[in-house]
Amino acid sequence: MADLFARHRATLEKALEASRTRGYWSPHPEIPSGKIYGENAKAEADAAFAALRGALFPLGQESRGEPCGEEVSPWTGEALGIRYPRADVEALVAAAERARGGWARAPIATRVGIALEILARLNRQSFLIANAVQHTTGQSFVMAFQAGGPHAQDRGLEAVALAYEAMTRFPARALWEKPQGKASLRLAKEWRVVPRGIGLVIGCSTFPTWNGYPGLFASLVTGNAVIVKPHPGAVLPLALSVKTAREVLREEGFDPDVVQLAVDTSAAPITKELALHPRIGIVDFTGSPAFGRWLRENLGDKLLFTEEAGVNPVVLQGVRDLSATCANLAFSLSLYSGQMCTAPQNIFVPETVASPHGPLGFEEVVRALVAAIDELLADPARASAVLGTIQSPATLERIARARALGRVRRESAPLPDAHPARTATPLLVELAAENEPAYCSEWFGPIAFLVRCRDAEEALARAAATAAAKGAITAALWATDEDFVARASDAFAFAGAPLSVNLEGQVWVNQAAAFSDFHVSGLNPAGNATFVDLAFVASRFRLCGIRRLAH
Amino acid sequence: MADLFARHRATLEKALEASRTRGYWSPHPEIPSGKIYGENAKAEADAAFAALRGALFPLGQESRGEPCGEEVSPWTGEALGIRYPRADVEALVAAAERARGGWARAPIATRVGIALEILARLNRQSFLIANAVQHTTGQSFVMAFQAGGPHAQDRGLEAVALAYEAMTRFPARALWEKPQGKASLRLAKEWRVVPRGIGLVIGCSTFPTWNGYPGLFASLVTGNAVIVKPHPGAVLPLALSVKTAREVLREEGFDPDVVQLAVDTSAAPITKELALHPRIGIVDFTGSPAFGRWLRENLGDKLLFTEEAGVNPVVLQGVRDLSATCANLAFSLSLYSGQMCTAPQNIFVPETVASPHGPLGFEEVVRALVAAIDELLADPARASAVLGTIQSPATLERIARARALGRVRRESAPLPDAHPARTATPLLVELAAENEPAYCSEWFGPIAFLVRCRDAEEALARAAATAAAKGAITAALWATDEDFVARASDAFAFAGAPLSVNLEGQVWVNQAAAFSDFHVSGLNPAGNATFVDLAFVASRFRLCGIRRLAH
Repeated sequence: MADLFARHRATLEKALEASRTRGYWSPHPEIPSGKIYGENAKAEADAAFAALRGALFPLGQESRGEPCGEEVSPWTGEALGIRYPRADVEALVAAAERARGGWARAPIATRVGIALEILARLNRQSFLIANAVQHTTGQSFVMAFQAGGPHAQDRGLEAVALAYEAMTRFPARALWEKPQGKASLRLAKEWRVVPRGIGLVIGCSTFPTWNGYPGLFASLVTGNAVIVKPHPGAVLPLALSVKTAREVLREEGFDPDVVQLAVDTSAAPITKELALHPRIGIVDFTGSPAFGRWLRENLGDKLLFTEEAGVNPVVLQGVRDLSATCANLAFSLSLYSGQMCTAPQNIFVPETVASPHGPLGFEEVVRALVAAIDELLADPARASAVLGTIQSPATLERIARARALGRVRRESAPLPDAHPARTATPLLVELAAENEPAYCSEWFGPIAFLVRCRDAEEALARAAATAAAKGAITAALWATDEDFVARASDAFAFAGAPLSVNLEGQVWVNQAAAFSDFHVSGLNPAGNATFVDLAFVASRFRLCGIRRLAH
Repeated sequence: MADLFARHRATLEKALEASRTRGYWSPHPEIPSGKIYGENAKAEADAAFAALRGALFPLGQESRGEPCGEEVSPWTGEALGIRYPRADVEALVAAAERARGGWARAPIATRVGIALEILARLNRQSFLIANAVQHTTGQSFVMAFQAGGPHAQDRGLEAVALAYEAMTRFPARALWEKPQGKASLRLAKEWRVVPRGIGLVIGCSTFPTWNGYPGLFASLVTGNAVIVKPHPGAVLPLALSVKTAREVLREEGFDPDVVQLAVDTSAAPITKELALHPRIGIVDFTGSPAFGRWLRENLGDKLLFTEEAGVNPVVLQGVRDLSATCANLAFSLSLYSGQMCTAPQNIFVPETVASPHGPLGFEEVVRALVAAIDELLADPARASAVLGTIQSPATLERIARARALGRVRRESAPLPDAHPARTATPLLVELAAENEPAYCSEWFGPIAFLVRCRDAEEALARAAATAAAKGAITAALWATDEDFVARASDAFAFAGAPLSVNLEGQVWVNQAAAFSDFHVSGLNPAGNATFVDLAFVASRFRLCGIRRLAH
């Protein structure tokens, strides 16, 4: 058995330091370069991906019934043809029950070392995972590489580091000595880290690894067996991750069923049955507010961490440079076709927006934004790289419905010559501020609303109120009045929406960096948990004491 | 405004150090001595208590309808006659909503300083609080002083310290600088601590301050307004605590409604309505498993911390000295008449118990335990000090029912000449190991079962299984076989029952020391939370970020 903890200890310590200072740091290079990942990494990954297609995925888990798989690439329209072991709830839970005792009793350092080794191996597979993410989520290759590979690995590492800190916050042993008259009472005490488990991780179809790793690794290192339930449309990225975890576990002498994959079909979903199983103690979920609500209402006292979605607001009070603002916002609206849970939806635009050159009218701002999107997407290659594809056909139907909500200010259309890729450019619909029924629910995809407000105060009040009431994962503000910025900072903080102010250039409201940005506040209906704070890790285990007289 | 944080900073730092090292420490002397608390402290407290009786409690909260109060001293049988402002749910919540903004926006150090000042003032009132605890819970004076005063203050301080650590784990500001080609992306970031609130603390009738302070102080320092809902039979200890909190808040320029008392009557309880109110975000509960279950099933996604009750097991594998073991166990069974949530209930006794002098038979062990209880309670003054009184008449009825469960091996009876105090000595009932329906639920009060087992292995297996299935807050083991101790340590840890091994002399399984023992594991049905770990504090607030380009 290798001393994996020693091998990865420097990385762990740097991760802890980064999570404390919250500056930029990553041990996982984000550039998909052969110089970093090996000259043949891309070619080998392409070959490995091709070999997986049309075959039974080599997971080492038994299939209960016919293997299943229904993934279709949004880029090619072709079925991937990969078949996975079909999950059976009772069989999965029974296997987890068999596996979990040995894992729970392993020393903290052993578990952490194994988790870090899994992450290191996932990093080396970043090109293959990029292929898997690209052809399930429909992201562009570069985004699939970065968000699905290194950035996801960062988030997993962040969870491991915080969990390690929480588990070692208290000593494993202590002598308790209480003066009692002339003598003293002496007790020798020890404490065991005891997992709450079994953990269930419910993956999403758009960022299966980035959103799945924090819960997976947090539950795993705290001693819980974990069952990973991917979205039927985006199995492969998590299947590769689970396969890697099982390999490391087996090599290190543990039952690989400490981590299992639970593949179902959209026709016969098992997620509710799994989540309700009495042996499941922890559920991590990323996905729709509808299913999130079901979980919040039905899981009783189970530990539940959700990352759902909201109505992310933008407020325009004033701009230093209208075109710089619009270029930045256009990119945020276009990136992965608005399918990020951090993408803006409701753009609150007052009748006049301040600028150094005098007030700008609503129409002027809207026209500038439309022009910025058009310009960003004018070059087909760049447009494809920015937009990626549309993961689900349901999103195209949603675009069609959204058109009817108000006045279309920018039409959504497929990218020219993109077929067979499923694409759609951003739709912008103008709405009156009073039309809350239209913009107060999530419209997932490349759909944004220009909410016409009397003035900036109304824009801020409506933006903060909808964030608090309907949820928001991000908020963006452009303002030239620092008093307004201060008021907005306060309002969005108490609405639980992390705020980006006056962004320009190569940094966007959509981005949330591991070790620095807390993703989802847990303070509004867009989710109840945060990547990654102490609350995300500390309740996945307990300390149970044993004490006796010390002599 | 005093700099309360600076005034109490040394105490805070020592508390953090103690919670890390988990040795003995307390800034609150536990001896009810005039030399420590002032020569006149007892007399003044007696006078203050007398003045409170029969009067309207001076809380500074409006009464909605007639003031109410139904406390009766279990020692004298007399009504205390104290009337409190009658609570109205909507009025309480509206007042908390008005008060919470200013409190949430206060600096961490301000809130922590105020909490520490409240604790310091509560410590100075320990004699008065002891009177209040004695004449509501029915504890003896010394226990009421220690558990209701200094030990409760320790638990409150522990919660403040951990919450302070959790809130300051991440920086308030950071510069994030990511290399990007020849330049770099620079973002200035800041984070606000945002409370989840409003917090509701539901008090119990036996240890209202000891069990109430952790949730109260944890929610308070993390920026939440708090509503304290005492048990109608034990209002005064929490009323004095809330009054003190309100005084300090007002002096420091905050709305005193940051902490409110919610007094109802047993005829018209408001607890469910309060707990379900949409503005209540956090609920801390100590009390019966029946109400705990209701909360766990009905609060949906609210943050819920419970300390309920279980079937605390004792396993006897072997004894160094039978009389020393029985003396220790007799005290644990007798202390406060078994009304501690940490008191043993199910004593699993094998047919033979090992000892250095050869095996001891079941009968011999039972007779020794009965004799030890009889001896402990032979002196009426000592018996009264150990047993205290029975808080609720329902407990006497429960004793009567328990007699019918099996063979009574020690009869429960009132203490001679104790009238009007409501007293009862421990009842011991012998049960067959198979009679699980009898011993697998909590029998609150001076009721314990001698569960006759084939051997020590059966005793351990049954004890651990019932702890896991029905909950346990403590477990006790006497064993001479170290392999057995190791197996039991493992079994009880994974059943979530903190274990005490081979206790003798002046230390008992019932005791849980602040800064050292984690009280309730949260791993079994006896409760879902722990006093005090990171999980208890870290999810009561979130960090919400604000970021902008740094120049």
